[in-house]
Amino acid sequence: MTAETVLREKIATCTRIFAMQQMIGLFGHISAFDPATGRIYMCPGMGVQKATVADGDVLALDLEGQVLDGDARIPAEWPIHTVLHGKRKDALAVAHLHAPAATLFSLVDRAFRPVTLQGCIFADGVPLYDQPRLVRTVEQGRELAGVIGDGRAALMRGHGIVVVGRDVEEMLLGALILEDEVRKWAEASSLGTVRPFSEAEARSFDAASDFQRRSHRCWDYFCEIEQRWDRQPGTGRAGFA
Amino acid sequence: MTAETVLREKIATCTRIFAMQQMIGLFGHISAFDPATGRIYMCPGMGVQKATVADGDVLALDLEGQVLDGDARIPAEWPIHTVLHGKRKDALAVAHLHAPAATLFSLVDRAFRPVTLQGCIFADGVPLYDQPRLVRTVEQGRELAGVIGDGRAALMRGHGIVVVGRDVEEMLLGALILEDEVRKWAEASSLGTVRPFSEAEARSFDAASDFQRRSHRCWDYFCEIEQRWDRQPGTGRAGFA
Amino acid sequence: MTAETVLREKIATCTRIFAMQQMIGLFGHISAFDPATGRIYMCPGMGVQKATVADGDVLALDLEGQVLDGDARIPAEWPIHTVLHGKRKDALAVAHLHAPAATLFSLVDRAFRPVTLQGCIFADGVPLYDQPRLVRTVEQGRELAGVIGDGRAALMRGHGIVVVGRDVEEMLLGALILEDEVRKWAEASSLGTVRPFSEAEARSFDAASDFQRRSHRCWDYFCEIEQRWDRQPGTGRAGFA
Amino acid sequence: MTAETVLREKIATCTRIFAMQQMIGLFGHISAFDPATGRIYMCPGMGVQKATVADGDVLALDLEGQVLDGDARIPAEWPIHTVLHGKRKDALAVAHLHAPAATLFSLVDRAFRPVTLQGCIFADGVPLYDQPRLVRTVEQGRELAGVIGDGRAALMRGHGIVVVGRDVEEMLLGALILEDEVRKWAEASSLGTVRPFSEAEARSFDAASDFQRRSHRCWDYFCEIEQRWDRQPGTGRAGFA
Repeated sequence: MTAETVLREKIATCTRIFAMQQMIGLFGHISAFDPATGRIYMCPGMGVQKATVADGDVLALDLEGQVLDGDARIPAEWPIHTVLHGKRKDALAVAHLHAPAATLFSLVDRAFRPVTLQGCIFADGVPLYDQPRLVRTVEQGRELAGVIGDGRAALMRGHGIVVVGRDVEEMLLGALILEDEVRKWAEASSLGTVRPFSEAEARSFDAASDFQRRSHRCWDYFCEIEQRWDRQPGTGRAGFA
Repeated sequence: MTAETVLREKIATCTRIFAMQQMIGLFGHISAFDPATGRIYMCPGMGVQKATVADGDVLALDLEGQVLDGDARIPAEWPIHTVLHGKRKDALAVAHLHAPAATLFSLVDRAFRPVTLQGCIFADGVPLYDQPRLVRTVEQGRELAGVIGDGRAALMRGHGIVVVGRDVEEMLLGALILEDEVRKWAEASSLGTVRPFSEAEARSFDAASDFQRRSHRCWDYFCEIEQRWDRQPGTGRAGFA
Repeated sequence: MTAETVLREKIATCTRIFAMQQMIGLFGHISAFDPATGRIYMCPGMGVQKATVADGDVLALDLEGQVLDGDARIPAEWPIHTVLHGKRKDALAVAHLHAPAATLFSLVDRAFRPVTLQGCIFADGVPLYDQPRLVRTVEQGRELAGVIGDGRAALMRGHGIVVVGRDVEEMLLGALILEDEVRKWAEASSLGTVRPFSEAEARSFDAASDFQRRSHRCWDYFCEIEQRWDRQPGTGRAGFA
Repeated sequence: MTAETVLREKIATCTRIFAMQQMIGLFGHISAFDPATGRIYMCPGMGVQKATVADGDVLALDLEGQVLDGDARIPAEWPIHTVLHGKRKDALAVAHLHAPAATLFSLVDRAFRPVTLQGCIFADGVPLYDQPRLVRTVEQGRELAGVIGDGRAALMRGHGIVVVGRDVEEMLLGALILEDEVRKWAEASSLGTVRPFSEAEARSFDAASDFQRRSHRCWDYFCEIEQRWDRQPGTGRAGFA
């Protein structure tokens, strides 16, 4: 298979997995970058059925956001993807999601910290892009990319999240973990004061060293579940942990 | 198709979508108004299966609440609809829902404010109709309409919500957003102090200018999902965001 | 149909509806009383599949708890039912449920009050049976019945609820409302301070006067949904409001 | 049937039940010990589809963690199992789960106490293994086993839980109860101050005396539900209480 075939298939599959997990819905979009050709592969934008996206629905763009191939709607916030793919060699996959749990941390006056061992891939925390607007221009995309820095993710105030990975598998697992961290913090806080891991604790666990291997196992696991999913609106969302 | 055919179909479809989203249940009802004929098209009342309502089940009323066509039960709170359709040219679609999340804001001593960018269509907040009773008379309907003023929605204490739109599509998206705002506020509040958007922030985002276009895309998206729904009681409620 | 046939069918159907709503599970049980014959009809006890209970699985008991007919396991807490049926002419149907939401109010140091208009059928509140034990003797049953008095329901500390009705339909709707009230209070409390209805407000709404009529519509509504339920473990729980 | 056949079947069935209840997901694993042969039967590790595990997928290990039979991946945290089976004659079944509710208590600064009558099997509370790391060595397994002592369970900080039983049935019910306790505490806490049972109250209820009998009924109940489960990702999780 060519790189293009592989990336189209991964983006389509990952889109359906996020749909199953109810993390992408009406508004989210994801992409992967092929550095050899400078092409970005991206799922279609607002209103498209994410649960049934096929390889052929995936758009190809260049780094300026010009659609090279495909006639689906390009997401209005394409600069999130183009700027990150252009700027970071280790951000070959990018997700922008209005994830129902992870987004919650963008609404409050507290900084995200990991609360589980898995969450320690976010040992530095997750910064907040605080602008109350969409990211529709390259300038705005740069501002967002500046907030992310060389991190794995950012929260976007009252809006959603961005997660990057070295490949689609890492991007998927990173997003699943962030979603799970915030859900757990929100639910646990009624039991007592939540004790997130300190930066030193999180670093000493060294979740990052094993992350790529784990992300590939997680990918296989969710691909199998996605294949047996019957596409009913409420029968998705497999338990993660 | 005649306007009547279109409106009957839209009301039936929107009723089934709300049923799928578990926002209409036993007690809710929705309507659309045809200003050319002065007729209101309304879904049947308490106890009817909202998940399987068909075009032919939709009732036709006049602005005095007289049933012109159809033999299903008229909702006991029909004056909610007749007064709003009669009073506001921009309220061609009206929903009264006991929506599980949005209703929660009617139980507490705090005023609703939007917390997401999408929620900024409610830049002015959502007023509370504070009377502890149903709306079964025209007089009560006027009182409620007075609370709504020229806004998009009102909360009804210990009861539910009213949402209006310039068409059924706007009414659907407005209700989905209100539901999502309240769910997010409730869930986020355990993470820290929620920072709703100020009126100035909400206005500057100008969500309203793009609202009708977005509501039509959202409509198409949920219509597709509703068509594949298997009508099992717990398999509805597609993720919104 | 004889009264026995009717009551067996109603108890079996109501058991399946509660199973669909995930309110009866492993441990709950319900009953109806025929004053003409002094017979109680009760669903089988712990471990029986509530989702598929049929009319023929329903047990017949007398007011002393002697099984007259049927070979299923009698619930260990049968005195809850026998004492209430023997004592109150208006408690012809009794449910004991470990309902996931309603039970929560039995864990905390606050008294239940209604928060919605529908909840005003509980205008007097719902008393707490505070004993940390099961109700396995007639003596304990009397103690519990004393707590309920002439009310519609009681909470049982760290255990569950008891709801009574003049018929199975009232018992079903009463339990659905109590479940919904507590769920709403729990979820709304993170938005602000919950404002329950005062006893005067609740009484002035006079929910009780229309309750029997509404309970019969609700019954028909849930019977239809139950008939189309596919019995998958997680596809039940139709939205109530 | 041989003990081996029975234990393989029980481990496979229990794994699928936990998958249905969304308590085992990507990362959990369970085991049973046959003291006559010194063999441990364990479900496969990370990434295997727990919802469809069959008897033949179950691994056989010795008490040193050597795989004797089976070619699936052994869970990385196998010492949790080997140490407990080797040390305690009454821990013939062991579960390590990242259970979504029970894990929450490992994130906060408060000690677990039972809140329901059923939860009184944990009359002594549930201790916390506070190390921010996985249990991948025998040494770490001993440390964890030291925390559990002769109890039924332990919480693992930011990670999950361990539950033991005299047989697979007890281990299942113990885990279901712990999950339910924490869910209830978390949800009830927004209604008021939760009143857990004191050690004296919990002991006087004497839940333990009837526990084995109840666990076997619960086992049969969940086995039946698991058999009719359609394996859709979101259709599992039968109501427990």
